[in-house]
Amino acid sequence: MSFKHKHLLGLENLSTEDIDTVLRTATPFKTLFTRSIKKVPTLRGKTVAQLFYEPSTRTRTSFELAAARLSADSLSLSVDSSSVKKGESLIDTALNLEAMKVDFMVVRHPVSGAPELLSKSVQAHVINAGDGNHEHPTQGLLDLFTIQEKKNKIQDLNVAIIGDILHSRVARSNIWGLTKMGANVRLCGPATLIPKEMRTAFGKSVQVTYDMKEALDGADVAYVLRLQLERQQEHLFPSLREYHEFYGLDMRKLAWAKKDCVVMHPGPMNRGVEIASPVADGPQSLILDQVTNGIAVRMAVMYLLAGGKA
Amino acid sequence: MSFKHKHLLGLENLSTEDIDTVLRTATPFKTLFTRSIKKVPTLRGKTVAQLFYEPSTRTRTSFELAAARLSADSLSLSVDSSSVKKGESLIDTALNLEAMKVDFMVVRHPVSGAPELLSKSVQAHVINAGDGNHEHPTQGLLDLFTIQEKKNKIQDLNVAIIGDILHSRVARSNIWGLTKMGANVRLCGPATLIPKEMRTAFGKSVQVTYDMKEALDGADVAYVLRLQLERQQEHLFPSLREYHEFYGLDMRKLAWAKKDCVVMHPGPMNRGVEIASPVADGPQSLILDQVTNGIAVRMAVMYLLAGGKA
Amino acid sequence: MSFKHKHLLGLENLSTEDIDTVLRTATPFKTLFTRSIKKVPTLRGKTVAQLFYEPSTRTRTSFELAAARLSADSLSLSVDSSSVKKGESLIDTALNLEAMKVDFMVVRHPVSGAPELLSKSVQAHVINAGDGNHEHPTQGLLDLFTIQEKKNKIQDLNVAIIGDILHSRVARSNIWGLTKMGANVRLCGPATLIPKEMRTAFGKSVQVTYDMKEALDGADVAYVLRLQLERQQEHLFPSLREYHEFYGLDMRKLAWAKKDCVVMHPGPMNRGVEIASPVADGPQSLILDQVTNGIAVRMAVMYLLAGGKA
Repeated sequence: MSFKHKHLLGLENLSTEDIDTVLRTATPFKTLFTRSIKKVPTLRGKTVAQLFYEPSTRTRTSFELAAARLSADSLSLSVDSSSVKKGESLIDTALNLEAMKVDFMVVRHPVSGAPELLSKSVQAHVINAGDGNHEHPTQGLLDLFTIQEKKNKIQDLNVAIIGDILHSRVARSNIWGLTKMGANVRLCGPATLIPKEMRTAFGKSVQVTYDMKEALDGADVAYVLRLQLERQQEHLFPSLREYHEFYGLDMRKLAWAKKDCVVMHPGPMNRGVEIASPVADGPQSLILDQVTNGIAVRMAVMYLLAGGKA
Repeated sequence: MSFKHKHLLGLENLSTEDIDTVLRTATPFKTLFTRSIKKVPTLRGKTVAQLFYEPSTRTRTSFELAAARLSADSLSLSVDSSSVKKGESLIDTALNLEAMKVDFMVVRHPVSGAPELLSKSVQAHVINAGDGNHEHPTQGLLDLFTIQEKKNKIQDLNVAIIGDILHSRVARSNIWGLTKMGANVRLCGPATLIPKEMRTAFGKSVQVTYDMKEALDGADVAYVLRLQLERQQEHLFPSLREYHEFYGLDMRKLAWAKKDCVVMHPGPMNRGVEIASPVADGPQSLILDQVTNGIAVRMAVMYLLAGGKA
Repeated sequence: MSFKHKHLLGLENLSTEDIDTVLRTATPFKTLFTRSIKKVPTLRGKTVAQLFYEPSTRTRTSFELAAARLSADSLSLSVDSSSVKKGESLIDTALNLEAMKVDFMVVRHPVSGAPELLSKSVQAHVINAGDGNHEHPTQGLLDLFTIQEKKNKIQDLNVAIIGDILHSRVARSNIWGLTKMGANVRLCGPATLIPKEMRTAFGKSVQVTYDMKEALDGADVAYVLRLQLERQQEHLFPSLREYHEFYGLDMRKLAWAKKDCVVMHPGPMNRGVEIASPVADGPQSLILDQVTNGIAVRMAVMYLLAGGKA
């Protein structure tokens, strides 16, 4: 089965079947990683441009390795946002890359909707690598893959997403993906960090609570978000210590969930703030699996966008 | 036919035949870009080092893609000019790259003549990617290729080069290339930005005017230079608005040229300053063709310098 | 013969036989560099991550080219040490790279022992590319290779190591390597820059002197260390001029050594400080041979760590 989308802008506009196609395609790519030669010639002679208007070592590295393992050439443009004013617009930069016959544009931008805008101007496949507070779809897909790999299903699982929901594009992509795949989602965090509209925006399969015990009760997955430490200056929570006390996932709170509850985090972690080290490094943690799976899922996305069959 | 030069330092010392060889060689490389695998094994196992003492995303990216499409390995050294004092000299850096058995050195440097100096110390092929106010020969060659591709000739065309001629290595390479290929060149800009010696330096096929109407009358090509906005602080022109009023290429002024006059710009553009958006994005614009052709021409240059036959 | 080490952390814990294995393996890799295609498929599909917590163009470039010439994919993470506080720990970064199924981690870090610490947490092969004042083993190996290539032996040679011994990981790796291979080592520099324990730490084959004439008398090799100019502010030597007068290697002092004494320096050089240009560029200098050999030796190290046979 082929993928009918030209760009990957978000999980909101993917169907359950689309998501399923990506997850099934990623599996054989992951088996590559245990071979001596971790590489296939699938995208040889294609070019993947990374256009990052926000710094990100992790996501950029993951896409770069995904491209290399598909034998594509990579091109990295880190655009220092401080120099954007002097420089050319996002669209002019994208049109130039298009004229250079780049096949994929992986775009991270502080403005929600920037990748979508760009997708309307170019023939290359645009992959949203995080836009403002909007979406980070490859993160959502790799999280779904990781859950399914461990739990053999996503349907009917109880997933607690914990932390700064307000500013999190990771949360939004996960909420769309998880609900489309039939999971029950509980959002939990300080009231200042959970937008009111979340209580209704995604239908009855998403609940909001400010109480960790409630969020974790019966949970199959505890998904901990990274806390942007600079949010403290905006007075959105009182102190890191207090945050950790109420919402940091430690062994005591994890015991409120199901015994086989798995723990996830998109990284990089603030150990001792949103997550305690015994949890991060414990047997229930899938945090490093997420990293491995990220490459396989990104390979699958590029392969499918380029017209590959699932 | 093979190319008799070892380095590409400028168009001043290329013959008409040399230029013609590059342009003819670039054509088959350009056809590669429409194929599924945009890559040939021509320079497999060769190394291209990029040694940039001035920032440039565009030229560096173009050379990087040209190298990748010839299957060469690339190495990028961005030398922060602020740390040059502490570091080693250009020649020591080049001798080190030479000892690393690099095959090509693509050099951008704020000092005119730096690539030539370097070419005397190394066995690698040196390609000048812009030196001071001197030359930017691959830009000149890609511009000639673009004109010839559209107009089927260069001989006898009227080409207006508009803007800051004084500080422009792009203008100098174009003037050398265009006059060698038999075009008539008119230079136009504020008197503060056109050196007096330009009126005589290139013989009777180059004229100077300060009047856009005169420059564009009968023009086949309007070549707009990028305005370095920091020049304003040197009081070389009164204001961006006034500059645009007198020398910015807009639809009104473009109408003074031939009906099929094409518009070119080396990028990145200051929209609304030296060029108006309706012109930049209009049907007469070849600006994005220049970008595409840049890769094909740079592939041709590396292929020929390495001893390839035209 | 195969190499029994999984990581390369220093020369202190290598046997004479281990060192000999690396040197013999590097020879055929060096012959590659004179071929038209300077590349072998040995590590195709493997990934080499460079994790640099201190800036280094030269070492990073050398490893990058070594990886490319073995057909491995490279990944470069330059970690600005100023942002380390905000970011994740070295170990978390390494665990992430490990989860990405990276095969080699080339690590430079300001803290002595950091690569060793890291090697205990990962399955990838860790190569120390310089840690604090501790070791820089690939530099030591390429220096040994260069001496052996020129002198056909290392045993019984007199090697003077000159300069800032105190802060030099290059000196430490060379001392371990040279003494294991049977050379006599003389350390020479200002008393403020030679730790007292050096007089006894390596046994009787290492002597300390503060007098250049004594150090160079009968020397087969004069190894000049780079002077970190910022050490002057720590009052470890009075002035650059005085340093050059007493310890800078110039033609006058070089005449005190054997007639066929060779000159080495790890680069980049401070010409006119620790070394005079006539010496650096003279017929006795092996400084650029060191650079060439660095790539061959690093290829050998990666090949052997990956299980290749000598």
